[in-house]
Amino acid sequence: MAPRSAHSLAGVRVMGIDPGLTRCGLSMVQAGKGRSVLPIAVGVVRTPADEDLADRLLRLSLAVEEWMDDYSPDVVAIERVFERSNVSTVMNTAHASGVLMLAAAKRGIAVHMYTPSEVKKSISGNGRADKAQMTNMITRILGLSEPPKPADAADALALAVCHCWRAPMNLIVEGQL
Amino acid sequence: MAPRSAHSLAGVRVMGIDPGLTRCGLSMVQAGKGRSVLPIAVGVVRTPADEDLADRLLRLSLAVEEWMDDYSPDVVAIERVFERSNVSTVMNTAHASGVLMLAAAKRGIAVHMYTPSEVKKSISGNGRADKAQMTNMITRILGLSEPPKPADAADALALAVCHCWRAPMNLIVEGQL
Repeated sequence: MAPRSAHSLAGVRVMGIDPGLTRCGLSMVQAGKGRSVLPIAVGVVRTPADEDLADRLLRLSLAVEEWMDDYSPDVVAIERVFERSNVSTVMNTAHASGVLMLAAAKRGIAVHMYTPSEVKKSISGNGRADKAQMTNMITRILGLSEPPKPADAADALALAVCHCWRAPMNLIVEGQL
Repeated sequence: MAPRSAHSLAGVRVMGIDPGLTRCGLSMVQAGKGRSVLPIAVGVVRTPADEDLADRLLRLSLAVEEWMDDYSPDVVAIERVFERSNVSTVMNTAHASGVLMLAAAKRGIAVHMYTPSEVKKSISGNGRADKAQMTNMITRILGLSEPPKPADAADALALAVCHCWRAPMNLIVEGQL
């Protein structure tokens, strides 16, 4: 078997999404050779908490569609929302996530979901890494001059890098590489 | 104060949605004078459980947009999804709900959310009414020749009728009528 690094997604543009309604982290990276990943863009979409839920979902949808039109991702990596989350806004996050996945499906862009612990393990080697460790690792991996802020932006980058590194291995496991 | 029945939504077209990904109930009614409600359409959208989540959300979105284009609702009444629901598919229902609300917001259609117990109380006078009671009541209220099936279709009709009856009272409470 060839070394895993030979099976990179080199050239593939991955959009990472940390779903949320009040703040949604968006990132765009391009997979390079081996484990190298090139950062292209990172940002956060916010929607006003005092607006109607449906109108906030529309704002979010328009923003993510603009990103997809601007950067033409080949694939989307999004965090899986859990029912057992201890966050009080989990339902809003799940509604937001539905709208975000729809935007990808409308363009025929494949969507891959990762749990927070899968992302943490992939990036830092520790499924329980804290926010500071994750931000530190993602800053180093992408060779950024300063840490991405806020945390949602760093999380969106981590999701995209996680996909760049895990997807080739998943294809090997599935016998497709 | 004038009798409440004077403050009906007469002429308003209400779309009721019982959100779901495997089965989503859709209904259309038109509010009449007083408490009368005219049934216009009822149906269920299904998406295949073996398809990717994002593709299922796209199917659901296209189906609900077609309904909105065909029937031009003035307002949407949708069931509020609860985190504490004991249904294992609550996250899929929440994703679906986000996509359904987005379809309304894109068209500038107002969205109103009701809890299952609000709907039950409004239709049957009992917030804990069972499915058989609810189906029986909605069949009588709308003067249908036979009970709507499956349960999701009956629930979608109940949501629309609930809005026709509650919205005028809510406006009185808010001092807008």
